[in-house]
Amino acid sequence: MPLNVAQKLIKDHLVSGEMKPGEEIGLKIDQTLTQDATGTMVMLELEAMGIDKVKTEVSAQYVDHNLIQDDHRNPDDHLFLRSAAQKFGVHYSMPGNGVSHPVHMQELSIPGKTLLGSDSHTCANGCMGMLAMGAGGIDVTMAMAGEPYYIEMPRIMGVKLTGELPDWVSAKDVILEMLRRHTVNGGVGRIIEYYGPGLDDLSAMDRHVIANMGAELGATTSVFPSDKEVKRFMETQGREDEWVELKADEGAEYDDHEEINLSELVPLIAKPTSPDNVVPVEEIAGEEIYQSYIGSSANPGYRDFAVAAEIVKGKQIANGISFDINPTSRLLLQQLVDNKHIASLLSSGARLHQAGCNGCIGMGQAPATDQNSLRTTPRNFPGRSGTKEDKVFLCSPETAAASALSGVITDPRTLDMDYPEIPEAAAIKTNKMLEDPPEDTSDIEIVKGPNVSTIPDFDPIEDSFDMPVLLKMDDNISTDEILAGGSRVLPFRSNIPKISTFVFEGVDDTYTERAEGKRDSGGHMVVAGNNYGQGSSREHAALAPRYLGLKVVLAKDFARIHLQNLINFGILPLTFDDPSDHGKIDEGDVIEFRNIHQAIQDGNTFKVKLKDSGEEITVKHSMTKRHIDLMLAGGIINWAKQRQ
Amino acid sequence: MPLNVAQKLIKDHLVSGEMKPGEEIGLKIDQTLTQDATGTMVMLELEAMGIDKVKTEVSAQYVDHNLIQDDHRNPDDHLFLRSAAQKFGVHYSMPGNGVSHPVHMQELSIPGKTLLGSDSHTCANGCMGMLAMGAGGIDVTMAMAGEPYYIEMPRIMGVKLTGELPDWVSAKDVILEMLRRHTVNGGVGRIIEYYGPGLDDLSAMDRHVIANMGAELGATTSVFPSDKEVKRFMETQGREDEWVELKADEGAEYDDHEEINLSELVPLIAKPTSPDNVVPVEEIAGEEIYQSYIGSSANPGYRDFAVAAEIVKGKQIANGISFDINPTSRLLLQQLVDNKHIASLLSSGARLHQAGCNGCIGMGQAPATDQNSLRTTPRNFPGRSGTKEDKVFLCSPETAAASALSGVITDPRTLDMDYPEIPEAAAIKTNKMLEDPPEDTSDIEIVKGPNVSTIPDFDPIEDSFDMPVLLKMDDNISTDEILAGGSRVLPFRSNIPKISTFVFEGVDDTYTERAEGKRDSGGHMVVAGNNYGQGSSREHAALAPRYLGLKVVLAKDFARIHLQNLINFGILPLTFDDPSDHGKIDEGDVIEFRNIHQAIQDGNTFKVKLKDSGEEITVKHSMTKRHIDLMLAGGIINWAKQRQ
Repeated sequence: MPLNVAQKLIKDHLVSGEMKPGEEIGLKIDQTLTQDATGTMVMLELEAMGIDKVKTEVSAQYVDHNLIQDDHRNPDDHLFLRSAAQKFGVHYSMPGNGVSHPVHMQELSIPGKTLLGSDSHTCANGCMGMLAMGAGGIDVTMAMAGEPYYIEMPRIMGVKLTGELPDWVSAKDVILEMLRRHTVNGGVGRIIEYYGPGLDDLSAMDRHVIANMGAELGATTSVFPSDKEVKRFMETQGREDEWVELKADEGAEYDDHEEINLSELVPLIAKPTSPDNVVPVEEIAGEEIYQSYIGSSANPGYRDFAVAAEIVKGKQIANGISFDINPTSRLLLQQLVDNKHIASLLSSGARLHQAGCNGCIGMGQAPATDQNSLRTTPRNFPGRSGTKEDKVFLCSPETAAASALSGVITDPRTLDMDYPEIPEAAAIKTNKMLEDPPEDTSDIEIVKGPNVSTIPDFDPIEDSFDMPVLLKMDDNISTDEILAGGSRVLPFRSNIPKISTFVFEGVDDTYTERAEGKRDSGGHMVVAGNNYGQGSSREHAALAPRYLGLKVVLAKDFARIHLQNLINFGILPLTFDDPSDHGKIDEGDVIEFRNIHQAIQDGNTFKVKLKDSGEEITVKHSMTKRHIDLMLAGGIINWAKQRQ
Repeated sequence: MPLNVAQKLIKDHLVSGEMKPGEEIGLKIDQTLTQDATGTMVMLELEAMGIDKVKTEVSAQYVDHNLIQDDHRNPDDHLFLRSAAQKFGVHYSMPGNGVSHPVHMQELSIPGKTLLGSDSHTCANGCMGMLAMGAGGIDVTMAMAGEPYYIEMPRIMGVKLTGELPDWVSAKDVILEMLRRHTVNGGVGRIIEYYGPGLDDLSAMDRHVIANMGAELGATTSVFPSDKEVKRFMETQGREDEWVELKADEGAEYDDHEEINLSELVPLIAKPTSPDNVVPVEEIAGEEIYQSYIGSSANPGYRDFAVAAEIVKGKQIANGISFDINPTSRLLLQQLVDNKHIASLLSSGARLHQAGCNGCIGMGQAPATDQNSLRTTPRNFPGRSGTKEDKVFLCSPETAAASALSGVITDPRTLDMDYPEIPEAAAIKTNKMLEDPPEDTSDIEIVKGPNVSTIPDFDPIEDSFDMPVLLKMDDNISTDEILAGGSRVLPFRSNIPKISTFVFEGVDDTYTERAEGKRDSGGHMVVAGNNYGQGSSREHAALAPRYLGLKVVLAKDFARIHLQNLINFGILPLTFDDPSDHGKIDEGDVIEFRNIHQAIQDGNTFKVKLKDSGEEITVKHSMTKRHIDLMLAGGIINWAKQRQ
């Protein structure tokens, strides 16, 4: 059977399951990528598992998110990450080297390989003919430990590109058109594969723009073939020997179909507050702006900055406009300096920032209250900029630069100039972007600042025990209520004892103290209603309560990701056979569990007893064989440790 | 009588008093400078005074401190400052244009003029033959309103410079030598005037380095003559027509004397944690470093960055070193780009930051815990970097760059290369660094974000009243205890109602509620021991309690600056005639004040009565005629308003 690119990538890495949409498949992971916001936990997990050296072909740790160093915590994390990367055999990219996705593309991407990254835009490297997917931190940890990555086999949506982009329309407008047509849910359960004659008009870095924002479609990932454009890109990086061709077989089919005629596209813009709120720029032209922002992994290429520079060259931006230039890598910045584009930008009045993710994830460049901010970034969800009352628009560099000049939203086609030709930047010499891990890692010491603590050891759940109910909750408790996010709590992400002091603080501020009191005498359980653990996927909402002694959660049902997180950290997730039994349990009750190790292996239901009344309740679990193995090992870290 | 430069500057601007060291003199202020951290309050004060337009020759508002925009507050402040600058006829410098001191020097400095700035390093413009002084916010507000600035006539210390700087030794080493000899108190009550043949070897920007860190000597300011070097600098800025010569008269004398032979200097470094903890670099060479930091108004010049660039050109910095380049202005950054110095720095592995104060005041680039950081900045007080457990060393760009290459503290004389010659940078075209205020300001609206609120109106203190004692305190209450500093409280600096909720929170957390309860029925007073209001000079420690209704402070004695702040905001500061009377008053007592308007004008003592016991107590005040005028007007803002 002829295969498309996505199917070839999956088939080449399939270790379990069948390639039928909806079936669980296991994939061998060749490469991993971690960034600093998620990477500290990954490194602590590797340490807790007793891993000596990662088992992937290539793993890289980037520092690109937490670059604002206003106290010791971020720089301490950087030192920790560098030492841990050396210890575990991982490439390390210093703060200031740039954003993970374009740097990985430049330095380490190889067509035909799989890449798993603890960042949702990892899919950007799909531009290189890779199967590149974002995942949770522990998933990436397991991949680094040599385990497969499990997903449901996605449907493959083929997007045929025809025609040629008109002047003043660029790759960002292509993905905005996809978002206009398919919304932020349109890619769920799908891999989006681009093909057709229109590809000839898109450089590898243009494809990066499109693949990157596949995340905003909700897609599992996006893929492009590895063709002459990919080869040309690798030549500019001096890595042409690593190029391999990868294209769909003649007659390959897709599960779903779409077609975009590039010639018909116009400059587009996503209005606040969703990436799919897309209209033609001309429709809202003339609205005053406060800020024009160039940068992020959604427009990371030399071309993206150079075209903005050519537009403002010799001119001055409108008075009072914050024209923020955020280079995506040190290498790129050097190229822009060498080719005088930075001079053009600065001379026009631009504000040049350090290379990194920066304002794209609310780390600086936040706009003023209620003021319009035009950005080339991938997301405009409310408050993501750092300003609660923000108004962020997503657009191409052409639209952002044209608007900086006029001070109002401007369709770049109305500029009185020819569309700039941007020749490829010459290769340049720079200090190595990635530090290779040392050959011999035996005497590397991991450096831990005062805010980094080892993940505690957890014993597996006992076979028989009496468990006090410390909290009784109703429906729709979110992970934010279990453990808040935000700048007050998350800086303690590498410090489990400290972050655990925030658990359930909005639900019951006596909880942590009561939990501590029970920790040494066997722990405790909580009872909840429907949809327990909805919202953010953060693992700390399982790990931190586990540290406080949470062993069992008995709920009406669970949100999918939190259920997985509970299992991963060895907390037994049970549901009521009869949901009305929820009413029979009160805070302070004690529940008797007997011989549960056998019980959970024998079937999906078993009985527990209310100690005071003696009444029996039937409970259920939905764990697979693999899950039960994790649970009986005391969680995924113990399980992995036992396999070393 | 022949005069030195400092005396000429003072004589030309003297509006009251005599030029005898220690006597109060009033000086006409020609120019003012405000930065964003202090400028928001200055603008609110101008608004509260009902000022239409500033009365100085030139005033400029710079945005250089609060450049980290991680929420709406800083960008909202920037918009507020821009609109207020336009309203009051003040030049405005956008975020990203650079640090106030070098930008003011480039764009607005004029030899022979006085400059008052709400930033302690305002003295840097002494390099231009100006009398440039740092002061509190309200002092600068008053100067903008056309009032004189009052100081005690300083002693003039003449520092004769002879010889010529050896290779690898530069201006920073000159001021470090001054700190080594005279310590951080050596300049108190003094103006430091540099003269002699050694001046020929120091460019205007080199002199900026020396004048800037006169603040670290505790000096009132530092002055240099306006000579051919100053003229040359103004030519590079296209402002040669504004140059005037200013030099000491033949035979001019100084109150104190010092001499430095530049030829004998070696590379120096200030060790943690004081700028006067100075040793030769060679003495501590070989210590490992984490960071090498170039930037700040203490080494702001083109030469300072270019020499670092030439040192690292074609080489790579040591693995793992954070080599942080913080350009001091957009203009300078452009010159460094044009002359390929930024290319050399980036290629070596440097991390390039936006133009501004940045890490010098703890806004980014904080070092990791307990790691050595070499900086060209002016101060290394503990924790100023943002990291509590920091280890900051102050040195020249030569020493910082040499150490970045080796990864250890390195005497630049040991580098295997010739000392780089740095030719003057060519003048360049850039977007205007300062926005001129509009001619007609009548229809300018001041833009206030949600965190900016107008300063409330305060009535003058009544003539006769009964006042409840809400707090009784002992000795040494600091302004930190009256109103805490730090990142939790200070972001509300432009919002008096909000910041007042923190008043006395560490002393008595019921205070604010009790004060609110008394506000509409005449207010309240507090009683304290010795040295009340010691520590930080922050005005909010008077303004915020005044907002809550504090009308009288009765103490054993006051710290000098807080006493002035109390008077400025119309709070009556009284002391006990017999300090043991402190023991007669309890929290909750009510004290009767009768006919005090006449009493404070008639003499320094009067009697008050404890309402319950009927016992009389004699109280004193130390206010001058000028102070009494302020007090009876209800504070300096009302006083100034009445003079409009």
